[in-house]
Amino acid sequence: MTSAVFPGTFDPPTNGHLNIIDRGSKLFDKLDVVVAFNPNKSHLFSPEERLELLRELTKDYKNVTVHLWDKLIVEYAEKNNANILLRGIRNTNDFAYEFDLSLLNHSLDSKIETLFLPTEAKYGIVRSSSIKELAKFGGDISGMVPKIVEEAIKSKYKG
Amino acid sequence: MTSAVFPGTFDPPTNGHLNIIDRGSKLFDKLDVVVAFNPNKSHLFSPEERLELLRELTKDYKNVTVHLWDKLIVEYAEKNNANILLRGIRNTNDFAYEFDLSLLNHSLDSKIETLFLPTEAKYGIVRSSSIKELAKFGGDISGMVPKIVEEAIKSKYKG
Amino acid sequence: MTSAVFPGTFDPPTNGHLNIIDRGSKLFDKLDVVVAFNPNKSHLFSPEERLELLRELTKDYKNVTVHLWDKLIVEYAEKNNANILLRGIRNTNDFAYEFDLSLLNHSLDSKIETLFLPTEAKYGIVRSSSIKELAKFGGDISGMVPKIVEEAIKSKYKG
Amino acid sequence: MTSAVFPGTFDPPTNGHLNIIDRGSKLFDKLDVVVAFNPNKSHLFSPEERLELLRELTKDYKNVTVHLWDKLIVEYAEKNNANILLRGIRNTNDFAYEFDLSLLNHSLDSKIETLFLPTEAKYGIVRSSSIKELAKFGGDISGMVPKIVEEAIKSKYKG
Amino acid sequence: MTSAVFPGTFDPPTNGHLNIIDRGSKLFDKLDVVVAFNPNKSHLFSPEERLELLRELTKDYKNVTVHLWDKLIVEYAEKNNANILLRGIRNTNDFAYEFDLSLLNHSLDSKIETLFLPTEAKYGIVRSSSIKELAKFGGDISGMVPKIVEEAIKSKYKG
Amino acid sequence: MTSAVFPGTFDPPTNGHLNIIDRGSKLFDKLDVVVAFNPNKSHLFSPEERLELLRELTKDYKNVTVHLWDKLIVEYAEKNNANILLRGIRNTNDFAYEFDLSLLNHSLDSKIETLFLPTEAKYGIVRSSSIKELAKFGGDISGMVPKIVEEAIKSKYKG
Repeated sequence: MTSAVFPGTFDPPTNGHLNIIDRGSKLFDKLDVVVAFNPNKSHLFSPEERLELLRELTKDYKNVTVHLWDKLIVEYAEKNNANILLRGIRNTNDFAYEFDLSLLNHSLDSKIETLFLPTEAKYGIVRSSSIKELAKFGGDISGMVPKIVEEAIKSKYKG
Repeated sequence: MTSAVFPGTFDPPTNGHLNIIDRGSKLFDKLDVVVAFNPNKSHLFSPEERLELLRELTKDYKNVTVHLWDKLIVEYAEKNNANILLRGIRNTNDFAYEFDLSLLNHSLDSKIETLFLPTEAKYGIVRSSSIKELAKFGGDISGMVPKIVEEAIKSKYKG
Repeated sequence: MTSAVFPGTFDPPTNGHLNIIDRGSKLFDKLDVVVAFNPNKSHLFSPEERLELLRELTKDYKNVTVHLWDKLIVEYAEKNNANILLRGIRNTNDFAYEFDLSLLNHSLDSKIETLFLPTEAKYGIVRSSSIKELAKFGGDISGMVPKIVEEAIKSKYKG
Repeated sequence: MTSAVFPGTFDPPTNGHLNIIDRGSKLFDKLDVVVAFNPNKSHLFSPEERLELLRELTKDYKNVTVHLWDKLIVEYAEKNNANILLRGIRNTNDFAYEFDLSLLNHSLDSKIETLFLPTEAKYGIVRSSSIKELAKFGGDISGMVPKIVEEAIKSKYKG
Repeated sequence: MTSAVFPGTFDPPTNGHLNIIDRGSKLFDKLDVVVAFNPNKSHLFSPEERLELLRELTKDYKNVTVHLWDKLIVEYAEKNNANILLRGIRNTNDFAYEFDLSLLNHSLDSKIETLFLPTEAKYGIVRSSSIKELAKFGGDISGMVPKIVEEAIKSKYKG
Repeated sequence: MTSAVFPGTFDPPTNGHLNIIDRGSKLFDKLDVVVAFNPNKSHLFSPEERLELLRELTKDYKNVTVHLWDKLIVEYAEKNNANILLRGIRNTNDFAYEFDLSLLNHSLDSKIETLFLPTEAKYGIVRSSSIKELAKFGGDISGMVPKIVEEAIKSKYKG
């Protein structure tokens, strides 16, 4: 059985994330979506809010579950018998960052491998940070996030 | 069952290729190594020689088989019920080329996904073309290819 | 009046080229599509065939004309009072090549500027060389080129 | 009539910005320089100070005007009947950032196109952030900014 | 006599830094390691702590000395009759940043040259910032830093 | 004593090469310019012609000598007690290629280090291959090569 982890910040989840989850769920027997705490990024949504959004958005996938994690991602994989970390890659800049991170994780535990899945072209500009900035200026984000995320963002900026 | 294809030119197979095969064989239930004909590269070894070398080198892997193919690689995957193309990535240059190719293959058959596996740092400079050029100048390639490949190359340049 | 030149090899013209022509025709008062001879690439179609295909494909644009040119592209611009060279850019690799070329052309005639227009994401993998290789293997290219180009390519590979 | 917008932070305006304005003013019938508010960057000069510096520096260009704007840049273009956003590109890193941004803006309004103008080599290292850091350490910035900007920076760091 | 400066933040010194010092000490007659103050990065260790760690770690090199500096690095070089700035480069991202910086420094004093030394592959993922983040999560950093640095980091995060 | 090797194809020598030689001659006690045979490139000038041109162009440098070499460049360095290979780098693309090559050479002999010297911005577009193509089309190359090289190229294309 192949068990993969899709770690991320998901602040908020986007159509790009959902596309990776959809495709990943078909590639592996089991896919754990893990909301990982990243101290270098500021967050709009609390980890619990992100967990809830992702659970709602992935409820129709039989082999997908969503979890919170605030330690090293390789430790999550070890404890859950997953040997694959799945990451979507939009472009060369994404790659440069993820490549280094994957070598670091592989050096921490050589049984755990990172696999990169190229983002489909139509999701190439979908980025959580851009979406938040766009929403702040009142721009239309309806093509980039699911309906419930769009509403959640609007609530945040209205409040 | 996850079934993956590792396509390549393998002219000749290197320690880098074998590392990807070794790691890939642990990630997927079945791994088909496919010697693909690439009309844009000149070849030192015939397809049959490459097939034979790879079969010898992978004979201890229960879930790895080696094949020849001279059509589109997505057709191989379709016919063999594999939905994953596995490619090793050494650096940004590799990525740029493979990213485009993966989007092209995905556009030909959206059920087939390319997954990139980062090459371990020690194999970062192992490249079939460099090995052949190095061997031509009498350089030491023993750390880059298995013994039987080293001997096969020497035979070619001696002949 | 802004007059721009869109130079290229166009072997063959693709949907990506036509998208640049369509968008360029709206940005500038006049757009000259120039089939430039490039000695470093091998060609499937003769310059005259490419001229003819492009003329047919752009016949509905009032401000677009198509020309053949076998000298330096800055000389074409100078002789035709155009001070803009327009180039589509798909990704970082395209950029690296075109950036150097643009600085070279600017050094030959500082009145002539190259402007880069980002390729729309859906045309990111459309590349004349890939299309020819794909067609050679019998792959489906109908989404990448106009109908008359698809037929022209098939004639070439049938012949 | 071609009407273009040159948006930027201009904190402060540099010789590189002026070079783009000079060249842009010759390419388009009308060029609007727009001091755009960017919440992700800290600023040395207030928007009004930047507006004033740019107006002084561009007063001899008949077809160049300078404006303040704190909303989405595509909205500025729409309201002012400009369909071109002009951006200078120094190198691959600039490109990667600007390419994504241009695709995002194009997705917000497909009638608006971003055109990239390659920075002339001598301005390749001229960057507002480096200039401020250099000035802070007492380094010589006289070759990178106009005289009035050099003096304005010195006043800031003296104060 | 060739005299080189190896400037850096060294927060903390890593095995990668020591490898550059070791190799640099063999290339040049004299190598000054300079702990440079960088206002854009937050620091775990004080400049004095970093100085002390580096002095301990390099005490066996006859031609290596360690210094603190809080002004422009070219001024250090000028005052100490060094005309070489030595920088290690791990990958394309490092290069893009360092290339620009080197052109800037060269423009400040054309007698001073930056030379880039490629990082050995095994140190490619060794990065002060990753090490600190990893240590914060309790990850194993023993392969990335010398023993005394490992202990110093642990003291910081224990405190 | 620091002894460096500046290897290259030099087909033909350019102002960019001469700039690297000029700066390298000041950084190292001894600089050997080595015309290396590269079987993957086609050549306009014979190795002997390139040797002669370079000797004429560097005759005023006391510590610069020019040599022909048709084996591995690390062997040249070993035989001549040089432990530095000097390479000019114009941009990210140059870097990607040279970085790999430097790691390969370092793996062949770990005592030999490659140092990269950033090309000055004004020579960023000076490239032997572009110069030859430009000259073939009758373009002005006088700013890119020394007078004697310009004449030598013209003789070749006239013949």
